[in-house]
Amino acid sequence: MSQSHPFDAAIALQAQAGGSFLGQTSPAYANMIGPYGGITAAQCLQGVLQHPDRLGDPVALTINFAAALADGPFEVRPRAARTNRSTQHWIVEMLQDGQVVATATVFTAVRRATWGGHEARMPQVPTAEDTRRTARHGVEWLNRYDMRFLEGHIPSRWEGQEREDSLTRLWVRDEPPRPLDFASLTALADVFFPRLWLRRARLTAIGTVTMSVYYHADATRLAAVGSRHVLVQAQGQGFGGGYFDHGGQLWDASGTLVATTHQVVYYKE
Amino acid sequence: MSQSHPFDAAIALQAQAGGSFLGQTSPAYANMIGPYGGITAAQCLQGVLQHPDRLGDPVALTINFAAALADGPFEVRPRAARTNRSTQHWIVEMLQDGQVVATATVFTAVRRATWGGHEARMPQVPTAEDTRRTARHGVEWLNRYDMRFLEGHIPSRWEGQEREDSLTRLWVRDEPPRPLDFASLTALADVFFPRLWLRRARLTAIGTVTMSVYYHADATRLAAVGSRHVLVQAQGQGFGGGYFDHGGQLWDASGTLVATTHQVVYYKE
Repeated sequence: MSQSHPFDAAIALQAQAGGSFLGQTSPAYANMIGPYGGITAAQCLQGVLQHPDRLGDPVALTINFAAALADGPFEVRPRAARTNRSTQHWIVEMLQDGQVVATATVFTAVRRATWGGHEARMPQVPTAEDTRRTARHGVEWLNRYDMRFLEGHIPSRWEGQEREDSLTRLWVRDEPPRPLDFASLTALADVFFPRLWLRRARLTAIGTVTMSVYYHADATRLAAVGSRHVLVQAQGQGFGGGYFDHGGQLWDASGTLVATTHQVVYYKE
Repeated sequence: MSQSHPFDAAIALQAQAGGSFLGQTSPAYANMIGPYGGITAAQCLQGVLQHPDRLGDPVALTINFAAALADGPFEVRPRAARTNRSTQHWIVEMLQDGQVVATATVFTAVRRATWGGHEARMPQVPTAEDTRRTARHGVEWLNRYDMRFLEGHIPSRWEGQEREDSLTRLWVRDEPPRPLDFASLTALADVFFPRLWLRRARLTAIGTVTMSVYYHADATRLAAVGSRHVLVQAQGQGFGGGYFDHGGQLWDASGTLVATTHQVVYYKE
């Protein structure tokens, strides 16, 4: 992977004594306040992936966003809380100025061939090639993705028309193209604009508080996806008391489920 | 809450110096190997709920099952990694004999009244009163729940007929009845038998590795549910390479979403 790709530059970590890592927030992935959450998740995962004690590949990750990151350096502290014969449980803390800004748990495993049969099936949709790239403007990280919306686009008019459902589907890949791997897939899982905006067509202030990613593809399968678009969808579940959640799925162009995801988002009103 | 209810006895924790808690596995919630995962999740949450520094109520919990618990004592070590004005991020470790057997993160918050509108709607089903209690035999924890299956019952014949879908719906409450609260709701979220068994009708060895619970009801709402049945459903998403996941929803009898959940399960073949 070339260090010249903005994603690789953003997740580059320098190993420190004691098993921690130093990184830098990336202006290329800047969000409204602090960085895009997906890149923070990828950086936390990267700390585990680069750790010399790591066993196996990611099966599940949960990241909790504890505070908006400030522009500048951060420390990632991964710790193997438990190592079994073929599985490992990691606790990760990300810090700035000695304060925790994110926590995460990562479950890694040496996967074995077993019976399989994904149940979450890709919907019938036009191919990425047959779908026009959607222009998106605003925060910088949007420029790091080629997004091709099929359904549930961000409202074009913010006039408060409420909708009953918040299903969004789009094709997406890194921009410029980059071969898919665990880190970039993790970042992709946060690509959804807030489901609340779709439900309400109001620009309410929001912030993701927790996101989980479940990896259904191994490294070989991800490598086979290459830099092609991935179909991603998400739909809200519960909305109330200042928080909503959504569940989501990510498929490669052949229709194979590569990941599922769930997140909880704070909102102000 | 009376200590005489087996659930309250199972989640009873004794505060230790330094902010940790001592508990005991409960024979009343014994599973095939070690305790029912739902009770372990409730015990980890209880460590946060009883912590003197705790701010607000649970919004999200992720528990990672790192090893089968042995019968006997355990220690729960909750730590507030970050406390904000109205939110808090906890890291929890559960230990036996100095070894980590579970890790968890819990996000708590002081919730405020906002716009709301749950999108995951309860399916149209007969009431719990109109549904016969399903007889379930085997491991001890099954006797701690009154389950009334509507759809996707555990296979009655283990003859390997594969199914395309693994949707299960049932009414469930504690047995004997007990008013719903955050701890018991957490335990309820693990009540589903493995989706893999429904897909394959084969008794494959399994073990949950991570479970998340997202709380859409506040304490007042949960108290209003009382000891009535809750409708719960789950459906598998990805199955392969030794792991599958499911997403699930939990509603009270009035049709209000009280929680959503997601879990990843290891399987052997």
